Amino acid sequence: MEAFEKWESEIRGYSRAYPTVFASASNARQVDESGRSYLDFFAGAGVLNFGHNNPRMKRAMIDFLEADGVAHSLDMATTTKRDFIEKFAATVLAPRDMTMKMQFMGPTGTNAVEAALKLARRVTGRRDVVAFSNGFHGMTLGSLALTANDYFRAAAGVPLENVVRLPFETAPGGGVQQLADFRALLEDSSSGLLPPAAFVVETIQAEGGVHVASAEWLREVQRLAHDMGALFIVDDIQTGCGRTGSYFSFDGMGLDPDIITLAKGLGGYGTPIAMNLNKPELDAHWSPGEHTGTFRGQGLSFVAGRVALEYFDDDELMNQVAAKRETMTAVLDDLAAGSDGRFEVRGRGMMQGLDIGDGALAKAIAKKCFDDGLLIGPCGTGGRVLKLIPPLTIPDADLDEGLEVLAKAVHSTI
Amino acid sequence: MEAFEKWESEIRGYSRAYPTVFASASNARQVDESGRSYLDFFAGAGVLNFGHNNPRMKRAMIDFLEADGVAHSLDMATTTKRDFIEKFAATVLAPRDMTMKMQFMGPTGTNAVEAALKLARRVTGRRDVVAFSNGFHGMTLGSLALTANDYFRAAAGVPLENVVRLPFETAPGGGVQQLADFRALLEDSSSGLLPPAAFVVETIQAEGGVHVASAEWLREVQRLAHDMGALFIVDDIQTGCGRTGSYFSFDGMGLDPDIITLAKGLGGYGTPIAMNLNKPELDAHWSPGEHTGTFRGQGLSFVAGRVALEYFDDDELMNQVAAKRETMTAVLDDLAAGSDGRFEVRGRGMMQGLDIGDGALAKAIAKKCFDDGLLIGPCGTGGRVLKLIPPLTIPDADLDEGLEVLAKAVHSTI
Amino acid sequence: MEAFEKWESEIRGYSRAYPTVFASASNARQVDESGRSYLDFFAGAGVLNFGHNNPRMKRAMIDFLEADGVAHSLDMATTTKRDFIEKFAATVLAPRDMTMKMQFMGPTGTNAVEAALKLARRVTGRRDVVAFSNGFHGMTLGSLALTANDYFRAAAGVPLENVVRLPFETAPGGGVQQLADFRALLEDSSSGLLPPAAFVVETIQAEGGVHVASAEWLREVQRLAHDMGALFIVDDIQTGCGRTGSYFSFDGMGLDPDIITLAKGLGGYGTPIAMNLNKPELDAHWSPGEHTGTFRGQGLSFVAGRVALEYFDDDELMNQVAAKRETMTAVLDDLAAGSDGRFEVRGRGMMQGLDIGDGALAKAIAKKCFDDGLLIGPCGTGGRVLKLIPPLTIPDADLDEGLEVLAKAVHSTI
Amino acid sequence: MEAFEKWESEIRGYSRAYPTVFASASNARQVDESGRSYLDFFAGAGVLNFGHNNPRMKRAMIDFLEADGVAHSLDMATTTKRDFIEKFAATVLAPRDMTMKMQFMGPTGTNAVEAALKLARRVTGRRDVVAFSNGFHGMTLGSLALTANDYFRAAAGVPLENVVRLPFETAPGGGVQQLADFRALLEDSSSGLLPPAAFVVETIQAEGGVHVASAEWLREVQRLAHDMGALFIVDDIQTGCGRTGSYFSFDGMGLDPDIITLAKGLGGYGTPIAMNLNKPELDAHWSPGEHTGTFRGQGLSFVAGRVALEYFDDDELMNQVAAKRETMTAVLDDLAAGSDGRFEVRGRGMMQGLDIGDGALAKAIAKKCFDDGLLIGPCGTGGRVLKLIPPLTIPDADLDEGLEVLAKAVHSTI
Repeated sequence: MEAFEKWESEIRGYSRAYPTVFASASNARQVDESGRSYLDFFAGAGVLNFGHNNPRMKRAMIDFLEADGVAHSLDMATTTKRDFIEKFAATVLAPRDMTMKMQFMGPTGTNAVEAALKLARRVTGRRDVVAFSNGFHGMTLGSLALTANDYFRAAAGVPLENVVRLPFETAPGGGVQQLADFRALLEDSSSGLLPPAAFVVETIQAEGGVHVASAEWLREVQRLAHDMGALFIVDDIQTGCGRTGSYFSFDGMGLDPDIITLAKGLGGYGTPIAMNLNKPELDAHWSPGEHTGTFRGQGLSFVAGRVALEYFDDDELMNQVAAKRETMTAVLDDLAAGSDGRFEVRGRGMMQGLDIGDGALAKAIAKKCFDDGLLIGPCGTGGRVLKLIPPLTIPDADLDEGLEVLAKAVHSTI
Repeated sequence: MEAFEKWESEIRGYSRAYPTVFASASNARQVDESGRSYLDFFAGAGVLNFGHNNPRMKRAMIDFLEADGVAHSLDMATTTKRDFIEKFAATVLAPRDMTMKMQFMGPTGTNAVEAALKLARRVTGRRDVVAFSNGFHGMTLGSLALTANDYFRAAAGVPLENVVRLPFETAPGGGVQQLADFRALLEDSSSGLLPPAAFVVETIQAEGGVHVASAEWLREVQRLAHDMGALFIVDDIQTGCGRTGSYFSFDGMGLDPDIITLAKGLGGYGTPIAMNLNKPELDAHWSPGEHTGTFRGQGLSFVAGRVALEYFDDDELMNQVAAKRETMTAVLDDLAAGSDGRFEVRGRGMMQGLDIGDGALAKAIAKKCFDDGLLIGPCGTGGRVLKLIPPLTIPDADLDEGLEVLAKAVHSTI
Repeated sequence: MEAFEKWESEIRGYSRAYPTVFASASNARQVDESGRSYLDFFAGAGVLNFGHNNPRMKRAMIDFLEADGVAHSLDMATTTKRDFIEKFAATVLAPRDMTMKMQFMGPTGTNAVEAALKLARRVTGRRDVVAFSNGFHGMTLGSLALTANDYFRAAAGVPLENVVRLPFETAPGGGVQQLADFRALLEDSSSGLLPPAAFVVETIQAEGGVHVASAEWLREVQRLAHDMGALFIVDDIQTGCGRTGSYFSFDGMGLDPDIITLAKGLGGYGTPIAMNLNKPELDAHWSPGEHTGTFRGQGLSFVAGRVALEYFDDDELMNQVAAKRETMTAVLDDLAAGSDGRFEVRGRGMMQGLDIGDGALAKAIAKKCFDDGLLIGPCGTGGRVLKLIPPLTIPDADLDEGLEVLAKAVHSTI
Repeated sequence: MEAFEKWESEIRGYSRAYPTVFASASNARQVDESGRSYLDFFAGAGVLNFGHNNPRMKRAMIDFLEADGVAHSLDMATTTKRDFIEKFAATVLAPRDMTMKMQFMGPTGTNAVEAALKLARRVTGRRDVVAFSNGFHGMTLGSLALTANDYFRAAAGVPLENVVRLPFETAPGGGVQQLADFRALLEDSSSGLLPPAAFVVETIQAEGGVHVASAEWLREVQRLAHDMGALFIVDDIQTGCGRTGSYFSFDGMGLDPDIITLAKGLGGYGTPIAMNLNKPELDAHWSPGEHTGTFRGQGLSFVAGRVALEYFDDDELMNQVAAKRETMTAVLDDLAAGSDGRFEVRGRGMMQGLDIGDGALAKAIAKKCFDDGLLIGPCGTGGRVLKLIPPLTIPDADLDEGLEVLAKAVHSTI
């Protein structure tokens, strides 16, 4: 670890929580240079829905490299990109009768959010964007203004403006009635509130502490947005790409977002890519090259991402999500049941959170897990929630083993 | 191309300028699906300093994939990342007696700039940052505030604040005297100017039109910054990593930046990575995880980037830069000489610009080049400057051929 | 009127609503140049609590002029200013055991609010200020940011920042529970809300539509402010100086504001003056001359203002307020009773509002009143509320006559 | 003085510099309560161009009070206001063939500037306003953003945005060439500068240190503004109303401002009033009541202001300005001549500054003057400039006596 201590910035975080040097990885396991194997319930912060070094994707990537495919193309047209686009259209858009346009940008989630904000402001001619308490949308100034966490916000060093903050459905004061009150204020020309450009919402607040919104509330957010002439934007960066058992986290909820932001799981292999889906009539407001990004055309990401989409053609993996979720919640519910009401289990699909109610305690449990060979990360206010987001492809035995490690850690810590 | 027209966002740009579908690429050439070969003087907007699909890097990347190296690691420690860090320290930092800390973030240049701004504001407790006319620093709200181009800025849809704009050395009113005047105003408590957090400068404004700063002026910017208690930040994203014949664009100028931003060429193969070099005493102001990014630990980028650094161990390639530059400027100077004073040649190393003085004309020349099999891109105000940034590894024959195509295009167009 | 049409700005407002030229005025009546007398239920927008050309004050002002008193003194010490200060201390502060410091500034309410905001931000080192829907606090950029009305805000031409907007007690979603929810969000470090510098509130929203806050809710606002380390600021500019039957509008409510802003009625005669009362420990944060104003020392205002304070030494006038209020509400309640639930009566003391529920209708009634010799002004969203703020000194006969005109106008209009 | 120390805010300034209690005043003299007479070279910060308690105005004001004229009228039409408007049109506008509209607002200079900014932003649809180093335009957030002095700006507690700062003609880097450079940057779409809404300039920077702009430079500012589609706004609040020997400070310079802000001297007697002159085609963009102010219709100010305008009908007083200026500069030039180049004399008309080059020294001189019976105030960076702005009506003997006191104070202090 000395090289990291000597040369890497003090900002490094995970290498402090997991103080070992990883040498290889496969599906739901990482192996450090001493040969010790760790179960991975963190999966690259929700990126590795299909496991580390997914063999199908690896094969395609090596073939691509050997064939001198265009690795870096900005937004020039390439055969590899076309394959990705056509596969995405066939697998994701067509079955949903969606006609949305795919926009590529700098391959990070934050760049996707920044692009969505630009388009929303362009289309509406308005500045303010509604975001929710406990929301997480990125680290660059535009997306950071939406992000709720004080720790991240304080690092900006400048005021973060042009955002109106509402309580998320599950936060104090939040809910459908709150949206009705907010609507009434927006409709009163003496309320001091201007109609916003957009409402930006996560269906499950992942970083914010695994807070799950109801379909009813999300529909009301969408209705309010549209009644006010604002865009309804779903940030599906961490929750999309299969995490909840379907491609989008909001499938089946009767929603019709104007913009959907995607990143993390989209590249399949951990290869960087970000993409927004824009309704065509909104997308038409873009002029060529207004929001660029050097790495917006990544051959390897297109290749791996195309293979990842194949998981959504047959339902085998998606069908397993429900079963694995049950395995997870069975253990978590047990832990909550034994906590005298201190713990709470929240989640959907294979994103589950165990709210420990205390950040220091959650950290101690996560440390114990690491010592026992399980990678798991805290989230939420003060890091009080243990978030379980293993690869969707995790073998049942690994899932069971990891849950056992977690249960043991909880019991030995509290 | 129909797939792109049907499914991709209207924001697409290069696929309009280069309306063909590329299928493979090698060193300074891209081949489209019809088998036509194009010379590439654009090199992925300055990313591909070592050519498309550099064979040394490709071999290492395939080995890494086959060995199940950790492809996606956030900021966990991995053997691959350690190899990169140690190589960078040995090849770049040690020979320069630099002790700077390496900070990784979301793998785009704009994220690097956003991180640098946060650190500068944190360290100084100030808000305003000095940026220069014609500067380009990225597309997210923080970096976009520094970027000078109106077209990009107008897309923000919100005010871009916390930036003080000065003329670049070569712009009207710019130069050492202007810096002295600005210093006098900063020192007058009734000037209405507050001391800034940082001065952010490119040594050559690449996107801005290949404007070249002198060492004297850059030293004066640095001196002014330091006298005012501000940071001196060099954005070397497009100009660094060997483009000018040395690792940093400012090598040999007597500069000692507080933060250096790197991206584009750093990953070698077009694989995304971004990294800031922070002076240790400044870097110590970071708390863990204050500026994160999902894709900040990319195994493939570390592998290819490590191999790229080998080019800086022996001086062979770097030595060729001077010769190739002469080849380039010989042709460009000829074109300028035959333009009745309308054209101007500017540049350093293998970043050369031919200022046509007229955006429409420059566009017509670039189109003619494309038709004749050469990729070249305009930059600067109104796109009036043709920028030549071929791979440093371009074979002499390809360089000559490309310059010939360009010369012919100029002659036939004007 | 031609002179006004020819030479005065298009921004003129009241001269359009009351299209006649006034030549003289006395107590609750104004007389136009044709000799027609108008009853005045508007009283200079709440300035003339003691009537037009109050004879006691007039005598003192003439004496002052004849004695060559210092008419204009900035913040130099004058005998006249000392008399005012000592009288204010004896009449207002001493009986309430208040030790607040008097700060004078440019003699407008908006300047008072701007000064209060500066002090609150200085003391707390915070930026955001909480203001309420339908609030009115002035027209300059700092106070305008607090003002809720879209019409006024839209005139700014720049974003109005650094304000967090909450619903007023009587607005949709407003009330004690809302304050509790807001407190919970402030206490959550992931809510995206920072602790504010101040809560700025009117006890009765005069311009906003005569919305009356309860003592319980105001105490809860104060408690929340203090628990969050924020200042509790009461804007008593329109509601203070006796309007509700006591000097401050919040007397007897168990409140202890950190800053109280005063203007309008303070000068007694319509002579301009503005003054903040600052708790001494907060006031100590000011450095000399940090917030100045050329006209902050007005001899005539000090003279008339001192005489005005005499009305608060014996309780005769103040005692009449309750009786006159009853006279007013008797008529207003009747009008509301006959409106099939369309009208609502709101108010405290001699600030009463008749909410007509429709701006066009309210305007028609006000016009009919003017035609019949009564000046009355609309307020609230879309101007739907008729506000009755006659001089406290209005003779009973005039009050009755004016109410009769109003009742007739209502009956003939609806 | 105890009453002030006990009850008045710590922000009080002049009562610290002039620690006595004034009881009466007449023309260029103030008398304190002990009967000591002081010569007044400060004249209420430039308000009292016609002396303290000007007898002509006093008579008219008493008559007005006795006749129960309308003292407070918001923007209702009154006979008194009409008299003022017509007099201003006849005396000031007609001889200059001006057709500008008069806009009244809250009676302070800062409110006038805030209104001008709103109109400029409304008309152009732009946000940024150009202001100059060392400029002073007021204390409320909009005007404070234009004000250059750090001490005042720091009190805001929030970022002061939407202003582009240029050096004043006489500041480092300032002048006609600087304007040409700025023009070139504005015309370059990659300069990072947007066309501004307005240029706001003082012809003489009074608070800023008596910096005098040349007619040539002012014309170039105006030309640049108009070429860029921006408004040219002259802030004549301290320099107008006769101070330089003509009504406007820019008379005879060939300027044609779009908006002129007036306040201080406009009310004649120190009675508060503020007024903007707007070109009619710009003024037409106002909607009724968009920028209001409770005290915008002050009968006493209209009366005294009307009488003040009579001084501009015959040229007697204005003719004296040149002679008195000579008296002043003769003494000042002598002082400068004897200073070994340390002092500098600057000014126009009866606004003259003696730049001492050192704030502490200037303060000591001003203190000595006070001790010897002369009121004089420092201005400029660090208070290094002694500003002489006696009433225009000062008797020659008083002027001589005051200059003698000043000379003695300088000699005894340095």
